[in-house]
Amino acid sequence: MPRIHFQQQLAELKDKLLAMAALAQQALDCSLDAYLKRDALMADHVHDHETAINAAERSVDEMAYDLLAMEQPMAIDLRFLLAVIKINGDLERIGDQSVNIAERAAELLRHPAVDLPVDLRQMGELTGWMIRVAIQALLDGDAGMARSVLTMDDSVDRINSETHQKLVEVMQAHPEWSQQSLNTIIISRNLERIADHATNIAEDVIFWVRGADVRHQFSTAAD
Amino acid sequence: MPRIHFQQQLAELKDKLLAMAALAQQALDCSLDAYLKRDALMADHVHDHETAINAAERSVDEMAYDLLAMEQPMAIDLRFLLAVIKINGDLERIGDQSVNIAERAAELLRHPAVDLPVDLRQMGELTGWMIRVAIQALLDGDAGMARSVLTMDDSVDRINSETHQKLVEVMQAHPEWSQQSLNTIIISRNLERIADHATNIAEDVIFWVRGADVRHQFSTAAD
Repeated sequence: MPRIHFQQQLAELKDKLLAMAALAQQALDCSLDAYLKRDALMADHVHDHETAINAAERSVDEMAYDLLAMEQPMAIDLRFLLAVIKINGDLERIGDQSVNIAERAAELLRHPAVDLPVDLRQMGELTGWMIRVAIQALLDGDAGMARSVLTMDDSVDRINSETHQKLVEVMQAHPEWSQQSLNTIIISRNLERIADHATNIAEDVIFWVRGADVRHQFSTAAD
Repeated sequence: MPRIHFQQQLAELKDKLLAMAALAQQALDCSLDAYLKRDALMADHVHDHETAINAAERSVDEMAYDLLAMEQPMAIDLRFLLAVIKINGDLERIGDQSVNIAERAAELLRHPAVDLPVDLRQMGELTGWMIRVAIQALLDGDAGMARSVLTMDDSVDRINSETHQKLVEVMQAHPEWSQQSLNTIIISRNLERIADHATNIAEDVIFWVRGADVRHQFSTAAD
């Protein structure tokens, strides 16, 4: 198979992965709408996205495996294919976490709405933005852009800790709101996990572009 | 490089992955001891394991990548290398989840011990067993054994749901125990995530042995 054909197939694989990323982002947006707007239909809708995401994951994996098996790519293309396989797995887990958020949002609908002293809208927007920036970094092959995702993750971790602490105080002051507080704590943790997956994606982009494994080293790296 | 040398390197890679799996299991065992025995030193110890796990993860990944790049393996060996890379990632996440459990166990030490109506010891043992069986299935190349892990995951999911429900009732009946209940709910969720990672490992073993992608299909598959 000529190399030009191989490059076309890599471009097609990238398009498949982008479609997968769009599905994962839609699942997150839907689950946040379900929570923020108390919308049961939207919560159900996340399950449809999950089904589509699982099918898309298989399709991306199969194409990446076929290209690895048939083309025996070298160096930069090999790293790209391995990054695609890992990013694909993280996108699928973003779908899983979105389902978890939707389930907690549905559970919250069984209890009266209360005004909790936390704002998960901002945390959700930041998390969604991390996914978008990580995917844009993949599109542009931009390691610097990918690295900006790693610093955003620190903000999400901080918001999650603050949310946890505030809602524990709410539980103690208003035991009758314990269900609302508990489900909101879990949604905050799910968002924090989604941010971790976006961070993994960014690290895989850096691995692909730089050919260096930055995992677990970034905070101490000089560059 | 002669093929016999390649087979030796694959065996060496498998040994590296087994050492990684042993570290992940130790991290889980330590975190459970920290929770069950209210042992602060054991909770700290999980962080040491995490550092070792992160180093082991990089070492496995690098060797797998080098073998992919230099040997251009075909068919069954390619599938094995891809399975190793994915299993490696799941083992690293088991380490992360163990750290989360240790953090919650440390938080629990800041509150009086109370007798909650749940038994996470059994759930922890079942989860640890899932990891061991999944890794044994990898060692033996036994898809049937790997499939037994998938049914165990259903039990862990059920225990997690029951634990959540019981502890919500405790929170409502005993608001003064809300911190203990909340942290125990989160530990139960972490165990459920670890069981998911063990399930992923089992699916990757099946993928390697059978050459078929069973993800998201197992419950409806005839075989």
